[in-house]
Amino acid sequence: MAKILVAKSAGFCFGVRRAINIAEKAVKSSQVVYSLGPIIHNPQEVKRLESAGLKPIENEFEINPSKIVIRSHGISPQREAYLKNQGFEIVDATCPYVKAVHDAVQELCEDGYFIVLIGEKNHPEVLGTLGYLELSDCKGVVVESKEDLKQVLGKEKVGIVSQTTQSEQFFKEIVGEIALWTREVKVINTICNATSERQEGVIELAPKVDVMVIIGGKNSGNTRRLFEISKSLNPNSFHIETEEELKKEWFENISSIGITAGASTPDWLIERVIARLREL
Amino acid sequence: MAKILVAKSAGFCFGVRRAINIAEKAVKSSQVVYSLGPIIHNPQEVKRLESAGLKPIENEFEINPSKIVIRSHGISPQREAYLKNQGFEIVDATCPYVKAVHDAVQELCEDGYFIVLIGEKNHPEVLGTLGYLELSDCKGVVVESKEDLKQVLGKEKVGIVSQTTQSEQFFKEIVGEIALWTREVKVINTICNATSERQEGVIELAPKVDVMVIIGGKNSGNTRRLFEISKSLNPNSFHIETEEELKKEWFENISSIGITAGASTPDWLIERVIARLREL
Repeated sequence: MAKILVAKSAGFCFGVRRAINIAEKAVKSSQVVYSLGPIIHNPQEVKRLESAGLKPIENEFEINPSKIVIRSHGISPQREAYLKNQGFEIVDATCPYVKAVHDAVQELCEDGYFIVLIGEKNHPEVLGTLGYLELSDCKGVVVESKEDLKQVLGKEKVGIVSQTTQSEQFFKEIVGEIALWTREVKVINTICNATSERQEGVIELAPKVDVMVIIGGKNSGNTRRLFEISKSLNPNSFHIETEEELKKEWFENISSIGITAGASTPDWLIERVIARLREL
Repeated sequence: MAKILVAKSAGFCFGVRRAINIAEKAVKSSQVVYSLGPIIHNPQEVKRLESAGLKPIENEFEINPSKIVIRSHGISPQREAYLKNQGFEIVDATCPYVKAVHDAVQELCEDGYFIVLIGEKNHPEVLGTLGYLELSDCKGVVVESKEDLKQVLGKEKVGIVSQTTQSEQFFKEIVGEIALWTREVKVINTICNATSERQEGVIELAPKVDVMVIIGGKNSGNTRRLFEISKSLNPNSFHIETEEELKKEWFENISSIGITAGASTPDWLIERVIARLREL
């Protein structure tokens, strides 16, 4: 029977666990509670919470003013002000590490830096952070790939922050490039510890096992990056959301299986995957 | 006959040309003029200037107070003050780009950063710059290899500057690494344009030719780095000081030769090498 090894720091991070606790408390004390977007990027956990009374909506226009949970990714200050104006009761579950990105952007803006936010252009965390740039009336860009760097050419003072769940390797490369052709660069590293630890866990485990299984939402950016890192170190890497996606043929004639999970993957999902692996 | 191609921006940089002009003027107006260390890292040019009246000394203790040229690498403010106190007449040929490093270090020190100076620990430019750290009573280290990075671990605010003639690739890597495990990093890129241009010239030319010849002092850091970059792109790379070191067998059955020269290599040496290559 193959050995099953779980990477250090797999699964729920501090901010996600905190957001779910806040949401569950809100649900207990109210009849209807909405979350603005799925509370985390994990369809299975969102479904579990929905049956407990937390209804995800895509947009505040869909509902009348009521109790609404801001998920760990946060929102822009403009949208927050709008919600309050409309009479929504806000339950703020924004991750404190995401708030630290908002603060860092405002600090760099005040000091006159052109902002580079290393992240995914359409990620809700990034969209929320961009609102703080507008608030400070300062200029900046999101850098998702090296292609985007041309927008930074010719800037004299560049301030760099990162989406909390950014890849460390990509962050390093982008910071190095920008520092090379800019006179002055100030970097505030806002990649959260949970992200670093999960990525380090994969880097350590993936080369040592025959097969790697990465558990987490297909819509979860940090899980996708764990999968990419794993694949680069071990071609036998698979990204699944639930135990039902496991295929017997992945595990033929092997002696070890590595497991990790994104920051938005609940423990009960990880446990189900492990149980199913033992059956196979 | 093999084609001879000269890399863009080979040879003397602005700061070296300026230092030699200043020294030559000083020699014309005085009987004896000393330079504190060889005025540039090129033994052949130093010899030419010596016969014109510029005497290199290693240490001010060797001579009585007289006219003394500070070479392009600069010196520490403590040593400069000492020379003035002893009655030396200082002719300052410090490169303005090196002065910019001194200014950058003081600016970062004032803002409370722990200083990382990316450079060679025993290079006179680096030793001079370190004096400005002491002047500002601030802390810092010279990072010459990745090994040195352990001294930066655990620092909260790191300010990074560079020796003017540093390798761009190494600079990028070190900045990226430090930014990853430090909360706040401020980088002032003090690699001079001449260095960037000469390195880019080699990166462009070396892969296109059969043999690369790099001309410059064996004691010249920037020349050595041009040689290292060239060798990584073309194994048939050779570092020489004069045309006498050229060997016939390097150029057998080839169709193209690339040439570059460090920032301290005079034109007359480059021309002699080209003339000798045409003979071979």
